Amino acid sequence: MRHLLSTKDLGRAEAIQILDIAEDMADVQNREVKKLPTLRGKTVVNLFFEDSTRTRISFEAAAKRLSADVINFSAKGSSVSKGESLKDTAQTLAAMGADGVVIRHSASGAPQVLAQSDWIDAGVVNAGDGTHEHPTQALLDAFTMRRRLFPGDSRGRGLDGVSVVIVGDILHSRVARSNLWLLGTLGATVTFVAPATLVPVGADTWPVDLSFDLDATLALMQPDVVMMLRIQSERMNAAYFPSAREYGRQWGLDDERLARLRPDSIVMHPGPMNRGLEISAGAADSAQSTVLEQVANGVSIRMAVLYLLLSGEREALS
Amino acid sequence: MRHLLSTKDLGRAEAIQILDIAEDMADVQNREVKKLPTLRGKTVVNLFFEDSTRTRISFEAAAKRLSADVINFSAKGSSVSKGESLKDTAQTLAAMGADGVVIRHSASGAPQVLAQSDWIDAGVVNAGDGTHEHPTQALLDAFTMRRRLFPGDSRGRGLDGVSVVIVGDILHSRVARSNLWLLGTLGATVTFVAPATLVPVGADTWPVDLSFDLDATLALMQPDVVMMLRIQSERMNAAYFPSAREYGRQWGLDDERLARLRPDSIVMHPGPMNRGLEISAGAADSAQSTVLEQVANGVSIRMAVLYLLLSGEREALS
Amino acid sequence: MRHLLSTKDLGRAEAIQILDIAEDMADVQNREVKKLPTLRGKTVVNLFFEDSTRTRISFEAAAKRLSADVINFSAKGSSVSKGESLKDTAQTLAAMGADGVVIRHSASGAPQVLAQSDWIDAGVVNAGDGTHEHPTQALLDAFTMRRRLFPGDSRGRGLDGVSVVIVGDILHSRVARSNLWLLGTLGATVTFVAPATLVPVGADTWPVDLSFDLDATLALMQPDVVMMLRIQSERMNAAYFPSAREYGRQWGLDDERLARLRPDSIVMHPGPMNRGLEISAGAADSAQSTVLEQVANGVSIRMAVLYLLLSGEREALS
Repeated sequence: MRHLLSTKDLGRAEAIQILDIAEDMADVQNREVKKLPTLRGKTVVNLFFEDSTRTRISFEAAAKRLSADVINFSAKGSSVSKGESLKDTAQTLAAMGADGVVIRHSASGAPQVLAQSDWIDAGVVNAGDGTHEHPTQALLDAFTMRRRLFPGDSRGRGLDGVSVVIVGDILHSRVARSNLWLLGTLGATVTFVAPATLVPVGADTWPVDLSFDLDATLALMQPDVVMMLRIQSERMNAAYFPSAREYGRQWGLDDERLARLRPDSIVMHPGPMNRGLEISAGAADSAQSTVLEQVANGVSIRMAVLYLLLSGEREALS
Repeated sequence: MRHLLSTKDLGRAEAIQILDIAEDMADVQNREVKKLPTLRGKTVVNLFFEDSTRTRISFEAAAKRLSADVINFSAKGSSVSKGESLKDTAQTLAAMGADGVVIRHSASGAPQVLAQSDWIDAGVVNAGDGTHEHPTQALLDAFTMRRRLFPGDSRGRGLDGVSVVIVGDILHSRVARSNLWLLGTLGATVTFVAPATLVPVGADTWPVDLSFDLDATLALMQPDVVMMLRIQSERMNAAYFPSAREYGRQWGLDDERLARLRPDSIVMHPGPMNRGLEISAGAADSAQSTVLEQVANGVSIRMAVLYLLLSGEREALS
Repeated sequence: MRHLLSTKDLGRAEAIQILDIAEDMADVQNREVKKLPTLRGKTVVNLFFEDSTRTRISFEAAAKRLSADVINFSAKGSSVSKGESLKDTAQTLAAMGADGVVIRHSASGAPQVLAQSDWIDAGVVNAGDGTHEHPTQALLDAFTMRRRLFPGDSRGRGLDGVSVVIVGDILHSRVARSNLWLLGTLGATVTFVAPATLVPVGADTWPVDLSFDLDATLALMQPDVVMMLRIQSERMNAAYFPSAREYGRQWGLDDERLARLRPDSIVMHPGPMNRGLEISAGAADSAQSTVLEQVANGVSIRMAVLYLLLSGEREALS
């Protein structure tokens, strides 16, 4: 693997390899000294054109636990945030000896541009680009499903036969897109549930079932996994978007809907949550919720990805 | 010790233990390689809801000298700065494997809420909360007094019989509060001197002498320690606060007042100083001033606190 | 060497020593583990009163590759950015145990004030002060010239007989000033080419040829090196400054002018470039361009400088 740009690019074997290495990384984090010397002397640059403290510190913790040097480069508002100079920024980082670049950008496709150029040799990790993809989020979600649904027997397998319902603002969600491709590759079936105005044009050509009715879908599917997406009110156009109250009533995971889920199903959310809007506090804090495991697994997944991109070898840890 | 939230919680033996470990840490800082491997593989998060470069870099230097990984999380202005999501922020940091959280918050009590919740396992250090407490500041002040007043004989002892006069804006000062509790525990006697409008309601129930007249107090007490507090003009209400000139004239430590102090007494200030307002340049730079020792001792104290909270053992260093 | 404040202070032997150590550092960066333990336990503070992400991360990468602990202190906008408190800031950093301070300041002379005071013991590196100097930029430029013009035979030598034309906004350029002194010391001859309104008063007393006509100068000199300076439009006064189009036409390095240069000459730019203004994309990306080597060499030079200032010894690496 040279870069991680999209889950669409990932083959099944490769995806399972990342999840398996993340299992090793999760073990490292349970050690007294939760640190490996693997990436000593490597430099990872967090190149964030958009603020995202949670994602940045997850990558930063991951890189530091592999003993890499981390340099935070917040490009927001600076002159380099203009698209025209992405080339110069990339070449500068390359010249400084960056071995890995973790890039967050508001423009869909920016990480691809970076990786497919000859500007930089470094491994590029897409940490979220516009409404396009957020592949490490999807990998940590798949990792979380595998560990929860196949406890003690997660290594080496995909998610065959697992049913996943993803609910919310599909239109703007890179998390939904990245999950869709990865979950399909791993053998799961995916259903999107959303208000009609929050489904992107063309979604009917995707390998996904579409629904506008959450209650009917949950009743019909009895899914293994319900994943609630974050509502980003600031992105919504008041005119075509349901009000917050209406949204919560129709598409939120409230306590009543939680009670109707299969007791062995799991409830996921990429965070940060709007408690009381797309998810109730009861659902967020229930035993079925994996919200905090997702955060913890995020560090393991990012360690695995940085390890694969930067260590120069693919052997599993011993 | 699980957390360091308040000096009110500290018993005498515990406080002296911190000061003694800080002595060891001060020795480390005089070495050629001023670094210990003690916290390798531990992650310390500086969670700052309020800006404070001096305090942040003091904790950052302390953590790095113990070989911990440090992640700076400036929450100011971001969505997490709303009190309602302190829980989610804390749980996120816990899930990412934070072993220690150094928190600075404008709301009095925020660190307590964090520590007393079941949101996070990490050791919590209060780096200043509202007008409530700033315990590492009080510890470094006590450490500075002990080293200055009992040179060569500071280990293992408290501050019995030491007289301390603290001057200035008691109303808003977490430094004054934290010092009051700790100094009392260590056996010192404390007098607060302040304009009447800058004494908090209820201060008459505290174990402290109150005075409004600096000259009379200094003449009467001939104190071992005079600690000047920083005036934060931006916090003052013009209507009830004396003007800067009036403040300096009545409650500032100018050269004349300095000359009337006992020559073996010490002059302290938590910094940053308003030279010419609460303290004259002559007093700040005099041989009696401990201002820079306080900064240096701050790193030693913070190393000691992080060591105690995160190392999992309490034995002194060898 | 105690500090690096100005290239005017550097003797020839000292300058060549820095360039030679930077050769060793460049070798380190070609290793699999591009890291030396040399500065373990040392603390480098990046004290930036002005934003400059490129310079900051270059110093940060350099310090981390020498295993120093790095603390970033962005003073911009904070209370410490007022000149009056530079003393207190410096003393605070000294007390916290800073071994090196890399300072960027909008006021010409601020690093000198810091270094020549008795406020701080740390080695001070000027990372750009006002319109005065930027010595590590000049050193990396000289290093780049030496490597390009004397391939395989660069160590131990100066730049005797090398002709350098520096083009653009001399008035505001600390890069031009630092290069002028260093290049002279190393034996090169320097010509400045600029619009008349962008030449500083007094430049006629400097050891430099002045010209207002780029084409005539290039034709006459056939220089070994053409260095284009960045135009900082925000600094210009519209009334006396040529328009961007006029500037590019008369003083820009466009493809035509590039074609007329000697094929073995080199084209330099300190970055970031305004492509199409002071330099065409063709010139920037040509084989003669050293723009990216300059960035890479910047890390090597900064490693060499930090090594010399902080390691306590001057022996070459083995």
